[in-house]
Parts: sequence; C-alpha cells; structure tokens
Amino acid sequence: MVFNKLLKEYKKIWALGVAKSSIYYDLTIFSPKESIKDKGEALGILSTLKKQILTSKTFLDLFEKAKKQANSDFEKGVIRVLERELDYYLKIPEDFMVDYNKLISKSSNKWLEAKKKSNFKIFKPYLEQIIEYSKKLANFLNSDKEPYDVLLDLFDEGMNMKKLDSIFAIKKELKHLLDKVLENEWPEESRLKDLNYDKAKLRLLIVALLRSLGFDFNRGRIDYYEHPFTSNITNNDVRITFNNKNKDFADVLTSVIHEFGHAIYDLQIDEKLAKTPVSSQENMSIHESQSRFWENIIGRSKEFMSFLLPLIKEFLNIDTDEDELFYYFNLVKPSLIRTKADELTYNFHIFIRYEIEKAIFKEEVSVKELPELWNDLYEKYLGIKPNNDKEGILQDVHWSEALFGYFPSYTLGNLLSAQIMFKIKDFNNLLSEKNFAAIRLWLKENIHKHGNIYPPEVLIKKALGEDLNPDYFIKYLKTKYLKV
Amino acid sequence: MVFNKLLKEYKKIWALGVAKSSIYYDLTIFSPKESIKDKGEALGILSTLKKQILTSKTFLDLFEKAKKQANSDFEKGVIRVLERELDYYLKIPEDFMVDYNKLISKSSNKWLEAKKKSNFKIFKPYLEQIIEYSKKLANFLNSDKEPYDVLLDLFDEGMNMKKLDSIFAIKKELKHLLDKVLENEWPEESRLKDLNYDKAKLRLLIVALLRSLGFDFNRGRIDYYEHPFTSNITNNDVRITFNNKNKDFADVLTSVIHEFGHAIYDLQIDEKLAKTPVSSQENMSIHESQSRFWENIIGRSKEFMSFLLPLIKEFLNIDTDEDELFYYFNLVKPSLIRTKADELTYNFHIFIRYEIEKAIFKEEVSVKELPELWNDLYEKYLGIKPNNDKEGILQDVHWSEALFGYFPSYTLGNLLSAQIMFKIKDFNNLLSEKNFAAIRLWLKENIHKHGNIYPPEVLIKKALGEDLNPDYFIKYLKTKYLKV
Repeated sequence: MVFNKLLKEYKKIWALGVAKSSIYYDLTIFSPKESIKDKGEALGILSTLKKQILTSKTFLDLFEKAKKQANSDFEKGVIRVLERELDYYLKIPEDFMVDYNKLISKSSNKWLEAKKKSNFKIFKPYLEQIIEYSKKLANFLNSDKEPYDVLLDLFDEGMNMKKLDSIFAIKKELKHLLDKVLENEWPEESRLKDLNYDKAKLRLLIVALLRSLGFDFNRGRIDYYEHPFTSNITNNDVRITFNNKNKDFADVLTSVIHEFGHAIYDLQIDEKLAKTPVSSQENMSIHESQSRFWENIIGRSKEFMSFLLPLIKEFLNIDTDEDELFYYFNLVKPSLIRTKADELTYNFHIFIRYEIEKAIFKEEVSVKELPELWNDLYEKYLGIKPNNDKEGILQDVHWSEALFGYFPSYTLGNLLSAQIMFKIKDFNNLLSEKNFAAIRLWLKENIHKHGNIYPPEVLIKKALGEDLNPDYFIKYLKTKYLKV
Repeated sequence: MVFNKLLKEYKKIWALGVAKSSIYYDLTIFSPKESIKDKGEALGILSTLKKQILTSKTFLDLFEKAKKQANSDFEKGVIRVLERELDYYLKIPEDFMVDYNKLISKSSNKWLEAKKKSNFKIFKPYLEQIIEYSKKLANFLNSDKEPYDVLLDLFDEGMNMKKLDSIFAIKKELKHLLDKVLENEWPEESRLKDLNYDKAKLRLLIVALLRSLGFDFNRGRIDYYEHPFTSNITNNDVRITFNNKNKDFADVLTSVIHEFGHAIYDLQIDEKLAKTPVSSQENMSIHESQSRFWENIIGRSKEFMSFLLPLIKEFLNIDTDEDELFYYFNLVKPSLIRTKADELTYNFHIFIRYEIEKAIFKEEVSVKELPELWNDLYEKYLGIKPNNDKEGILQDVHWSEALFGYFPSYTLGNLLSAQIMFKIKDFNNLLSEKNFAAIRLWLKENIHKHGNIYPPEVLIKKALGEDLNPDYFIKYLKTKYLKV
C-alpha cells in the first residue's frame, strides 16, 4: 500500500523527466536557435521542481515507510535507486549546486574556445576550479572515502580504484597483443574510407539496417545530428541520432549500431518497470556493454559482413566484398583521438585518462603539468605523440563538464561485451544465421528486462553466472585478430 | 518586491507550460505512435503539478499581497489574468474536473466515430452529457450569470449574449450583400483549384512566402501536419504547421498565411512580458483578428496577387495571371462546410452555431432536435441543406470538446480585422508596396506588444480609438466585392 503511494508520487518525477528529455531532444534537434536560452532556463526550473518534489516531506515520509517494508527485488531496487538520488539532493548544499552548475556552463564554453584555438591555457583556470568543485562534491557525498572513489561510484555503483586497478591490469597483455597484430601487418587503411555515396540513400540503408536488427519504429525514431546519441524519452519512445556524412560509411554505420545497442536496452526493459525509479539502467558500464556488444562483437564481426554486403551494394552502389568490408570495419592503427580508435587501441585511451584522473585526485600532478603528462602517456602506450592540445588533452568534453570517473566505464563496457558473447549459447551460430531476434531475446531475459533493479555487480553475476572477468576480452581479440 | 517574488514563482508555471507545449507538439508531429499514451499521461500529471503550484499557499499569499500593490498597467494585467486562472482552479471541484476531462476524452472519440459513420445518434448521448457538464461548470464559476454568458467569457473576456446580439445584427446587411454579389455572378469556381503541383516545391514556396511576410526562422519553424495550427512553445519558438496536399494551392497558402497571423502576434509581444502571466493573448477574438487580417485582408487582396504571382509561376510552374489568381483566392459560393467557406458566407456558419448554442443553454431546444434545427438554419441563411450529419451538425470538433462559446470569436475576429485595416494609416499604399514590415510594425506597436495586459475591449479602444464596430467589415466587403 505505502509502496503504491510512493510509486504514484514518483510519477510526478517521471513526468518531469519526460518533459526534460522532450525539451532537451527538441532543443538539440528541432528548436530554432533563438529559443535555446529560454529552453535552458525552463530545464533548470524543471530540475528545481524535481528536487522540491523528491525532497518534500510528503515524499521523504513515504520513502522512509516504504524502505522498512521493501521486500521483493523490485522494491529493494526502488529503494536503493531512490536512496542514491536522495543522497545527491540532501547531502549537497543548494548554493554549492548553483555555483557548480554555473561553473560547468562557463567551463564548457571555455573548453570549446580552447579546443578551437588548440590552447590549453585558456581552459586551465576553469579545469582547476572544476577539480576543486569535484573534490568538494565528493566530500559532501562521502567524506570517509577517497574523492575519486566517490566519483567513480556516481557513474558505476560500487566501482572504486582498487577494483579498477585489478581489472585494468590486462593492459600489459593488451599491449603485447597489439604489438603482435601490428607486427603481422594487419590493414591500417582502406580505399572504402574515401568513397563518396548518396546521403539520402545512406539514411534509407540505416532504416533498413535498424529494422533488421530489431528497432521498432513505432517505439522510436531516428534523426540526423552531428554527434550521435540515444535519447530515452519514455520506454516507448527511444530515439537514435546519426551523423550523415557522405564519406566513411563504416564510421556512420558502426555508430548507428552502437546507438542501437543503447536503444534496444531501453526498449527491452520490462514494461512493468516503466515510470518507476528503476525503469532505466543508469550505470554507464552496463549500458555501454550493450552498445559495444552490438557495435563491436556483432557489428564488426566477419559474419555481420555477409549481412551488410548486399545492403552496401544495393543502397550505396559500392562494389566491394566481405573480406574488404571486414578489414575496413576493423582497421588497426594507434591514433591520437579516442573516439576514432579501433578495438585494439581504444582501451589505451581510457587507461591514459584513468591514470591522469587518479593522479589529479591523489594530487600527484598539477593542472599545469597535465598536457605534458598526457603526451608522455600517449608516447608510452601507443608510441605516438600529439602535436597540439586539440588532438591531445583538449579532445574530450568530459572534464569540462566535471565528468571525472566516467571514462573507465567505456572500457568496462568493452570487457563486459566480450564476456557476454561467450555466455550466449551458440552465439557464433546465431550470428552466422543473422538470428538477431534470438540474441535480443537472450539480452532481454538476462540483462535488459531487469532495468535498474540490481546494482552492476549483482546484475553481472545474475546474468553471467560469474563476476566481470577481463580474460574473455583478450580471448575474443586473440581469436579475431590473430586467427583470421 | 512582492511582485518580483510573484513573477519568480510564476516562472515554474511558465516552465511547465513550455514542457506541456513541447510534449504536445512532439506528440502531434514527431512522436512514435506507441508512445502517445505515455505522453498523454505525462501531460495530465504536469497539469496537476501546475494546479498544485498555482493554488499552493505560497503562491496564493504572494498573489494576495501583490494584488493590493498592483499599480502599473502591467501589474494590473498580471493580477487580472492570474485571477481568471485561479478562479477556474479554485471554484471548480477537483472531482468534477476529473470526470469532465474523462467525459471530453470519451465524447471526442464518439464524435469522431459518429462523423465517420455520419450518424448523429452515436454522438447524441455524449453531447447531452457534455451540455450538462458545461452548465455545471458555468454554475461553479458564476451562478449569478446565465451559463452561456459565463462560457462566452471564458473565450473572450467580457463577452456576453447581449453584446453579441447587437454585433451580430449585421447579419441582415451581410445577407443583402451576399445576395447582390451572387446576382452579379461573381466566380464560384476556378480551374486553378484542380491543378497538380510538386509538393516539395510548395514547401519551398511556403518558406519563401513566410520569409517575405516576416517570419523569422531563427524564432520558429514549420512542419507538415494534416490540420494546420500554430504552437507557441516559447515567445522565441513559434511553430506553424501546414497541409501539404498537391492540389488547391490557394487553400494551403491562405491557411499558411492565417497561421502566420497567429504566429507573428506571439513573436511581436514585448519581450519584457515573456515568462509572465500576460506573455500571450488568450482572448480568441483578438488572436483570430490577426490571423484573419493576414489571411483575408492581406492574403486575399488584389494587391497581394501581384506579390504572389511570380512565386506561383516560379515554384509551382503554373501559368496564370493576377486576375485569375484573385478570383481563385476569392471564390464565393454558399457551402455546407464552415472551414471551406469564403469571406462572404463564412459568418453565416457562425451565426447558425451561435443561435443553436444560445437555444441549447436557454433550453429552448433538445439535443434530439438539433440536426433538424441545424439543417433548417442552413436553408434559411445560405439556401442549401446538408444531406447528412457529416456535412451538417457533425462537421466541427468543438462541441465534442465542450467548447461552447468559442465559435463567435471567429466572426469577431473577422469584424475586427476589417476595422484594423481602416485604422492603419496609408494601408492601401503599404499593401501596394508590399511593405509588410510597416504593417507588422503597426500591429506590433498598437496590438501585439501589449500581450494580455488589457482585456479585449480595453485593448481595442486603445489600439483603434473606438469600440469594435462591425460597419467596417461591411464597408470592406462592399469595396472588394461590388467595386472590383
């Protein structure tokens, strides 16, 4: 009874969430530019309303009563997720949050300016402040723990440096593997990268591709946007954006398949969880494991190329074969830009950022020294060195938005995606048969349908029968890159 | 000081309004169909939140204090508009509103079904209930007044039957004029109505046309939708929808110009009024006067045809001349469907509906008798009789949504639009010169910029120097239809 009351009251939060994501999506894709400032203000006010409702006496009373009665996995999940959210609102002072958000807004602008001018000095004072604020924020939340551990936990419940250090120890073996693949002269370029094609046809190809993978256009839509993302407006309205360049179709298609991986997660959550606090997976590593699974494990596989080939021929009018496609989708080359990296080098970009973030919060490095540290680490891990700040330390938006602790989840997602592959019964057969329905069903039954009922470690154990184990990722890469 | 506090608190209402209009527009134009039910639920919850904030002790206390101090026209306008809105929330019981909204939802569906089957009997029991609920609603708001007077006031502040009867007395002269024009064999058909054209080109023509009229695409956008409407999401984001048929371009273009008239009103409201209770004109007759002004007074004028002709030739590749265009845009023929009616017959559709609504609320007619009354009145005023309910009493959505008292504002808008024309200095010259900027400026300075600061009668007197006077409309029609 009290639980139903709590969930009913929570629907206000859900409706405000629908409002915010609708306005935000519209602002990004459809809004005339002169209205963007107004929309930003409206979003801010809606966030304040959300906080007022969540921290109202009515809601907190219901929450405390419900907490004592929580019994089922669902109820415990609701309490756990709400507690994390309330923590954030109740422990961090209002004034601090106002200043913090203002700082982030300013620092994002300054980062953009600095990146355009490729000049870290412009961003430096703001980054220093962002770091100070992040430490304070971590302290408000839990002053008993190391600040960086508190921040890691914000993006992945239960994650900390100790665990990450142990997981990321694979970097030695990864480095070894990378060197071997490079020695074997794995292709690092493809003529397909530079072919022109008709953008309108690419859009049709994307629709056909998404339909085949199982995207339901009655429960979502696609739109063009420079920086691809997935937006969950409701559990029945999940949208994917794609970059419609007219070159390098592998880049566009893998990005669409990546976003499909996010989208299908949201679309396969048990409908009974809709409009509740556990209606979506908020832990980045888990969500990212799904986008990487579809993008890499499926979308870059040899088997997938036989599915893709006729589409490429028909829609883009490009003459190629499965082999050429496969290598084009899997070029390996150490490079400076994380978002352009291949499966073998990608995680080194993350190891570098993780090391730097640890050093920052352990106060082992000053902000002034970061560009040099960045460049040295690239030299160390990938054997190449940025020529300027734009292709070096200024490339990612994350730090300007105070997203410290976010990067590791990309690698955690990669590791998990490979482990999942080995756990799906007959995966290679299903993939050969292009039986995406069976793969979707496995993911739904074992992972997606649970929404955010379980914290990551519990969910992983439940779905895979064991803890996260990075060895599967090495095994996957070895099979793919050494035995083809 | 207390006023600033009130306006600050009101911003929550504004932000919820932005949320609701964003979700509603998205739902209508962009949303995947399976998400529509969820969006409807979210809209309902956001409305409840709005009511809770407006009727909270905090807000009501601020309102009462501010009311005592209201001094400037702006402040008095804010209090006046808020008082009307609070009245609605405070006087009508919650339970009643829930039932009323449920009834409207059901009755709208039944109306649609009845219209499809052209069978009034299907709609009859719901219409009976809708009338009962409307009477109760009027009684909650003001039991001292006649129910229909209360309803008229909801759409046009200060309007009542006594005033309308006096204004609508022009129907005799209008009928006389119509008969004369028909005698003179004014064209009632045009070959242009049936020409095919390229839809994509029509869209480009609409963009060019709107740009020339002064629509700022940095503060608005256009989208295709079967039933054209204007949506004000913020004062810097006003959207127009248009029907992209591939025949009868005058119908599409006049509808676009009509919506432009609504849009330019919202876009020209003083930016100081944005995000306050008086940031938009809520009185239907005043808003409609602007859409009709652009659609009819400008858009169907002889002078406008010389502006339109080259666009029609260039974009639609149609060979015609100014004269043919003019008659095509101004065909006169008594017809059964209100939304398809010309300037000379349109208002008779409204007189008929007004007479029926009066009879309903004076309890001079039963719902059962309405179709017959409807058909008899069409015979009386326009000399034609509907063959069935679909082209008769079931044609409009309004009654199924309990919008009694709404129809008269269409004719009030027509009357006002002609009066405005005579008040703009050198209007004919400005129109001949296609100086839309000067016309927009006049409308802005005299009408638009005031937002909803003044009630309709005060605004009209302020803008035009006199009260609403229907004689101008007759004078306009005589000049146009008897002297061409």
